[in-house]
Amino acid sequence: MPGRERRRVSTLPGELAEGRKGAALQEILESYVAELEPGSALPSERELAERFGVARMTVRAQIERMAHRRLVYRQQGRGTFVAERRLAHTEHLTSFTEDMQARGLVAGARMLGVDTLRAGRGLAARLEVPAGSRVARIRRVRTADGVPMAVEQTHLPARRFPGLADEDLATRSLYELLAERYDVTIAEAVQRVTVTTLQAADAELLETPRGEPAFQIERITRDGDGVVIEFAASIYRGDRYEVLMHARRDPPAALS
Amino acid sequence: MPGRERRRVSTLPGELAEGRKGAALQEILESYVAELEPGSALPSERELAERFGVARMTVRAQIERMAHRRLVYRQQGRGTFVAERRLAHTEHLTSFTEDMQARGLVAGARMLGVDTLRAGRGLAARLEVPAGSRVARIRRVRTADGVPMAVEQTHLPARRFPGLADEDLATRSLYELLAERYDVTIAEAVQRVTVTTLQAADAELLETPRGEPAFQIERITRDGDGVVIEFAASIYRGDRYEVLMHARRDPPAALS
Repeated sequence: MPGRERRRVSTLPGELAEGRKGAALQEILESYVAELEPGSALPSERELAERFGVARMTVRAQIERMAHRRLVYRQQGRGTFVAERRLAHTEHLTSFTEDMQARGLVAGARMLGVDTLRAGRGLAARLEVPAGSRVARIRRVRTADGVPMAVEQTHLPARRFPGLADEDLATRSLYELLAERYDVTIAEAVQRVTVTTLQAADAELLETPRGEPAFQIERITRDGDGVVIEFAASIYRGDRYEVLMHARRDPPAALS
Repeated sequence: MPGRERRRVSTLPGELAEGRKGAALQEILESYVAELEPGSALPSERELAERFGVARMTVRAQIERMAHRRLVYRQQGRGTFVAERRLAHTEHLTSFTEDMQARGLVAGARMLGVDTLRAGRGLAARLEVPAGSRVARIRRVRTADGVPMAVEQTHLPARRFPGLADEDLATRSLYELLAERYDVTIAEAVQRVTVTTLQAADAELLETPRGEPAFQIERITRDGDGVVIEFAASIYRGDRYEVLMHARRDPPAALS
């Protein structure tokens, strides 16, 4: 197995009270895991307990905690392994394809369906079109190196993008297509992120167990003139995604 | 019950194919629920089915879906009710106290403990202090009008904030205290958001069922000079929180 590194980790400081060993071990194990390659094996609980001078129960509890946080995963009879790093959603508006490319992964899509529907009140309000307008709906499972990462359902005003439903969106970026065929450049988006657990249908598409925690992300994207281009509603795997936000104090003088 | 409004909602457009009634009903029901006051009762499944001209099964499936998304909740034998609106985390760096005040809610805290520990490698790296430095740790359940919303564990370099552990943090904002007693003004933060499900201990503190989806938010906050002030690791109820992000295309010319 490549990357099975076993770097030296400092043992617990002697002055630590016994009751704090769990919290200290947590930190040490997390740093340790962060330095290992994804997929590499952790030493056994016994080895870790000896190395760090704590009870095996303490090690087990912390590995349990890391498994719950999806930092490591267990394979029955084989051991515990370092999980894949999470991919970050940030305030930089990028396409899924760009996100994957930036990480050296091949972005792909499995088409679930393309159709045209008429916007009800909610969808019309989000797209800022009259209720009853025709809307192109594209449903895809997004993949990275063939592994399903997200279920995406996006809606675009059909009038602005004639023929969109006939394009091959399994192999290319929607945003790229919008730029090339319709001369539309996306400029900004508001993203609303909530948490959910995977229901059976999405779990199957994402090839993960039902009930796993996941991100639900709604995105309203606009072009440079502020006109709404799409409303997307996606489910992102919680074990493979994180959201990174930069927050600023506004106004800066508020607390001074 | 106050706010039990029963506004008229347009019925489904006649031209909709039968197979699309579910998706259309979803939208209509969501718009309908969005206009009702939290806590108000939904009409019965039978009434909704009649009003929208769809099968009762279709209504039930959509209510099930809304319940899964925590837009509504059921009470055994009483019916289905509109859930509380979610509170938004945004890119504006605000204290929990300010967030609640802005919504007309009274922010509170239940102290779980204050102590001082020595930073291990991971914590030291986050606080940008030498490993082994003394760190003040404050653990609180944050409440809104007395209802638990988040479990927050924050860490500050003890050297910069002497006596912090003796302050009464059950009734006031930490950031306010930092400004008043230590003349420290927070300026920016990086927030890392992941999803999780509530384990027994946090579920009990948050008075919600175990296994519910939740946000896990890690925040590293800096002052105006870029010096790290705190590292906070919190669990926010997934049924009461959402994260709102504004994303911009950067650089703007990338797709043109």
